[in-house]
Amino acid sequence: MNLHIFDQAIALQPLTDGQWSGHTHAGWWNMVGPFGGVTAAAVVRAISMHPQCLGDPAALTVNYVAAVTEGPFTVHLQVARTNRSSQHWQVEMTQLQSDGSSATVLTGTAMTAIRRNTYGAVEAQFPQVPGPESILPWVPPISMEWFNRYDIRVVQGAMPEFAGSGPVIAEAVSDQQSASLTRQWVRYQPARALDYAALAAMADVFYPRVWLHSGQRLPAGTVSMTVYFHADATDLADAGDGYVLCEARAQAFRNGHSDQTAQLWSAKGAMLATTHQLVYYK
Amino acid sequence: MNLHIFDQAIALQPLTDGQWSGHTHAGWWNMVGPFGGVTAAAVVRAISMHPQCLGDPAALTVNYVAAVTEGPFTVHLQVARTNRSSQHWQVEMTQLQSDGSSATVLTGTAMTAIRRNTYGAVEAQFPQVPGPESILPWVPPISMEWFNRYDIRVVQGAMPEFAGSGPVIAEAVSDQQSASLTRQWVRYQPARALDYAALAAMADVFYPRVWLHSGQRLPAGTVSMTVYFHADATDLADAGDGYVLCEARAQAFRNGHSDQTAQLWSAKGAMLATTHQLVYYK
Repeated sequence: MNLHIFDQAIALQPLTDGQWSGHTHAGWWNMVGPFGGVTAAAVVRAISMHPQCLGDPAALTVNYVAAVTEGPFTVHLQVARTNRSSQHWQVEMTQLQSDGSSATVLTGTAMTAIRRNTYGAVEAQFPQVPGPESILPWVPPISMEWFNRYDIRVVQGAMPEFAGSGPVIAEAVSDQQSASLTRQWVRYQPARALDYAALAAMADVFYPRVWLHSGQRLPAGTVSMTVYFHADATDLADAGDGYVLCEARAQAFRNGHSDQTAQLWSAKGAMLATTHQLVYYK
Repeated sequence: MNLHIFDQAIALQPLTDGQWSGHTHAGWWNMVGPFGGVTAAAVVRAISMHPQCLGDPAALTVNYVAAVTEGPFTVHLQVARTNRSSQHWQVEMTQLQSDGSSATVLTGTAMTAIRRNTYGAVEAQFPQVPGPESILPWVPPISMEWFNRYDIRVVQGAMPEFAGSGPVIAEAVSDQQSASLTRQWVRYQPARALDYAALAAMADVFYPRVWLHSGQRLPAGTVSMTVYFHADATDLADAGDGYVLCEARAQAFRNGHSDQTAQLWSAKGAMLATTHQLVYYK
């Protein structure tokens, strides 16, 4: 059986002592290094493979501290604390340098938890949007290999077209409310059932909000991403391998950084995850 | 000169090797342990005191992995990576146990950065609210020592009054939009100028959203908090020691955890910080 290309990219071999060995995958290449979402997914995969893992991912924070380069990487996991129904993890990803030294390319923390039956409610509103079948697949104005790993149907806030290759000013939208909002249906291509790793990757599926807000394709990249996983096993099974409605907006652009706050919904309207980023731009 | 009670609580002594020694402060006591905000602030203070620190806090994630107990604590800092204009930190807080072993009570990561002049915009809307002078100081329905460290004027979403001591059902608001929204003016008491440590503490100034949404005072506590600092030195100077408009809401309550997304604004309408939490509840 051939592994799905997502599972190829996050395939890990156990080393000793909470360390896991993986390798970057050309099919997920971004501008300089692999798509950040797939790197986050490798961390989630490592945690779920750990023999001491208690429960499922509830919170994840990853910091992209340096560009991941083509080649092998090592995920280092440490259990910081195991409580009755939750567990805290410290995460680091390293790569061997040509001089034989080890460089940290990612830091992070995670919490896994046993989901319990409690009071429950969703306050955020599932937006009224046309279904994915009624929208043509997105044709990206720039080319990144990882774009081809998803079937993306943009409802609102598609990546602006920029003339030429430089940061040319497109239609500036800074005076409108929701000027940085993108709503899009996203599905793995080929289809793949959702799990926490697949959700973690989807949390990073948005292009920089500053491109949309400023109308300029400024150099930009995620420096820190936090994901809160609300979906339980039933939600994931319900969502299956279908489209996920992913929406993101920024609250502030300031002094070289903007935030991003995003929601991931199943097609049936279940809140799967909420996620936040701090994004660097020039 | 007497130190402000906030600075007393986050006073740190340098040990060797990126370690800093502090002590819990009775004036900041919460239910079981100190107010989480002041613990986060101690981490920010430690980073700012580190001789290798580059720039100012931009992103902070702290995980409250175990209750901090009364007594001394040690903040452990490690520089994971120093880039041209940013720096990544790994953080741990430990406490010595009675059996002589060391227990991890907090894990985290942070990014500091040199703020640069770039494209800037604020997309979130500063809400139209009455000024703090027109609102009476909040009288908490339950008593926590740290409440006395802030002057709080609630615009909307005050902590519900619960009859008796148990989780009695108050007015349930689950069918309304913004049912978990709290807006309040908050100022240090006595007044204290804002800095990144003071902002980090204020990011945690909200009571559990599930109390407001469910109408039940369920046992609850923050397990992970992320703060993105948008304010630069000028914003902080402008905000001075005045009131900060703090607003928070939840997006989902599910299986023992809810999220919280919040904004901190200066009285003049400057976006100082955006912040997110995952909150455990029973």
